[in-house]
Amino acid sequence: MDHGFDLGGFLLALASALIAAKLFGEIAERVGQPSVLGELIAGIVVGPSVLGLVPLSLGILVLAEIGVLLLLFEVGLETDLAELLAVGGPALAVALAGMVLPFGAGWALTRALGYGPLAALFVGASLTATSIGITARILAELNTLKTREGQIILGAAVVDDVLGLIVLAIVTRIAESGALEPSVALKSGVFAIGFVVVAVVAGGPVGRRLVHVVGKSGARGMLGAASVAFAILVAWLAKKAGSAPIVGAFAAGMALARTNRRHDIDAALKPVVDIFAPIFFISVGAQADVRLLNPFVAENRPGLLLGLGLTVVGFLGKFAAGFCAWGKVRRPFIGAGMVPRGEVGLIFASMGLQTGALPQRIFVAVLLAVFATTLVTPPLLKRLAPRQA
Amino acid sequence: MDHGFDLGGFLLALASALIAAKLFGEIAERVGQPSVLGELIAGIVVGPSVLGLVPLSLGILVLAEIGVLLLLFEVGLETDLAELLAVGGPALAVALAGMVLPFGAGWALTRALGYGPLAALFVGASLTATSIGITARILAELNTLKTREGQIILGAAVVDDVLGLIVLAIVTRIAESGALEPSVALKSGVFAIGFVVVAVVAGGPVGRRLVHVVGKSGARGMLGAASVAFAILVAWLAKKAGSAPIVGAFAAGMALARTNRRHDIDAALKPVVDIFAPIFFISVGAQADVRLLNPFVAENRPGLLLGLGLTVVGFLGKFAAGFCAWGKVRRPFIGAGMVPRGEVGLIFASMGLQTGALPQRIFVAVLLAVFATTLVTPPLLKRLAPRQA
Repeated sequence: MDHGFDLGGFLLALASALIAAKLFGEIAERVGQPSVLGELIAGIVVGPSVLGLVPLSLGILVLAEIGVLLLLFEVGLETDLAELLAVGGPALAVALAGMVLPFGAGWALTRALGYGPLAALFVGASLTATSIGITARILAELNTLKTREGQIILGAAVVDDVLGLIVLAIVTRIAESGALEPSVALKSGVFAIGFVVVAVVAGGPVGRRLVHVVGKSGARGMLGAASVAFAILVAWLAKKAGSAPIVGAFAAGMALARTNRRHDIDAALKPVVDIFAPIFFISVGAQADVRLLNPFVAENRPGLLLGLGLTVVGFLGKFAAGFCAWGKVRRPFIGAGMVPRGEVGLIFASMGLQTGALPQRIFVAVLLAVFATTLVTPPLLKRLAPRQA
Repeated sequence: MDHGFDLGGFLLALASALIAAKLFGEIAERVGQPSVLGELIAGIVVGPSVLGLVPLSLGILVLAEIGVLLLLFEVGLETDLAELLAVGGPALAVALAGMVLPFGAGWALTRALGYGPLAALFVGASLTATSIGITARILAELNTLKTREGQIILGAAVVDDVLGLIVLAIVTRIAESGALEPSVALKSGVFAIGFVVVAVVAGGPVGRRLVHVVGKSGARGMLGAASVAFAILVAWLAKKAGSAPIVGAFAAGMALARTNRRHDIDAALKPVVDIFAPIFFISVGAQADVRLLNPFVAENRPGLLLGLGLTVVGFLGKFAAGFCAWGKVRRPFIGAGMVPRGEVGLIFASMGLQTGALPQRIFVAVLLAVFATTLVTPPLLKRLAPRQA
């Protein structure tokens, strides 16, 4: 390679990242936790603040970016709009409450502890999105995916994702413009909502057209590669339209979800996501400075206090949202199912760090909150689970 | 992303690269040519010297490097040592002659046209390796894979790959040290051969151990990700041991080829290779300056002449090697089957350009020769094909 690129260092970092991610992910699963938590710890361990095996070099960050785009593309691909509309009302109510309550509480707490409005915005946004992946996996394990509660949780989680991505687009735009101006917020909000609406409306026909054209090819691996190219292209369009690239990747996934090749695309995509998504979580962990977690250093205590506070409001906000559901359902179970933040919270926090809106101390506090809310969910859900319908 | 990285530009370049690769690859296949030729032309078209859609930015080069490593890993994974030994003698004779003749002729021609010894070394090396992928595909289409001729061609192509990679390691080392010193050549030759021998001897047990340990995991996508991590790790070791990373990736593939999970690993790897290998070929094409192909510019003529000459000696060297086979076989068919250079020749030429050993004019001449030898093979083989055994 050219450009003074250190190929040897890059290969060692990449191998270390992959091995650590799979090792810690496996350990996490053995103790009944989602593998993403293991990958996050792995990132902290191999990152610059502990072992220093995986520096945040441009090579690693490029692969992490590909990883998070493909992950959101896959989440979009697994998002079923029709199923979503079937649980309609209660899911929408849970989603909206589960968005407003943690956002407001996170914002207020951050401001109350003396941090600026931009940081408070990112903290609030990081607490909004429920992790579909983690929630769906736990529900499946408890055999409650097809219960009414399970459907409401998943529906609300999908709505939260879409709304959360719109909030992220707005917040990132504000961070980039440097100041909290209502006109910027309004404009980027309209853009982001417009982009999602256009993607949902036009995405179906475009996706079907793409699948039709690509289907005529007999070449090896055409469908998977063409789908990824489509996702990257829409991610670029999203960025051009003033939104975040991950919003585009998610929209591209939703567009292709409504084609008859959905499962083939997903099958081709999975092995790629399995390799690259962990590199994103490693990079998020590696960005955390572990020294800031030491409670015996006086300067760390405000950050740790914030992390603890965010865990509490992050938990309560989502749990309370569960009680907005109606009908004959176990509301506490729904609330508990909305609690885990996982990957999307991590994506938000990491974008906050990169745009400079989140100082390192607040970033670590948000990681703590994402981590803790995800950690408590599996045992809690097992306790509150309804019997299968 | 951080580091002043232009995310928008990178996404557009990546989407353009993928779309162009798949489009031109498909066109190539429609006219009966290997898709790699289409991808190479696509790279020239979208590269800096024509459309400028895909600059040779660090982001693209990182993905290209991942692509070529995974491609060689896959080639290694599909390399069967046992099958290779079964055709033994004739394949070995064809391989050795097919290595020595083009190397010597390429070297002599380059020197005769007044270029330096280092450039001549890379040119010779680029002409040594027959493309297993292209050859195997054409043989399969002609239904001659299982004939004795087909087996000799494939066996010889595999031996050529292994020997070619050793030659590449030596040549790269010489290029890095800056001067053609026999001691450097000898030392790196011993290292490269030692590395391949150790990898082949120790690789089997290590690969089986890895597959055994990983097999205990129930986590999603563990086998594929762990295999890729292994390949990257061995690639790093190869570089540390003074060889080329692609030699390590190839050796890692050969090690895992002798495990009982070979086909599962290959299945998980294919979708990843389908996306990343084309980015490598796009980057090779993008490195070529198309203006140097204009024959009406007087300064271009020596380079074009070299390209023409290399095509002729590259063709004749391999074709003559086919006549070193013995037994009741169609020797011209074997010779023709050894002609296409494809991916490995491109890898060598691109490393020559990157180490600075190949000036841009000679690089373009080598691309021409690789291109032309690959182009003439499918019609020629169809003409000379024996009937199925």
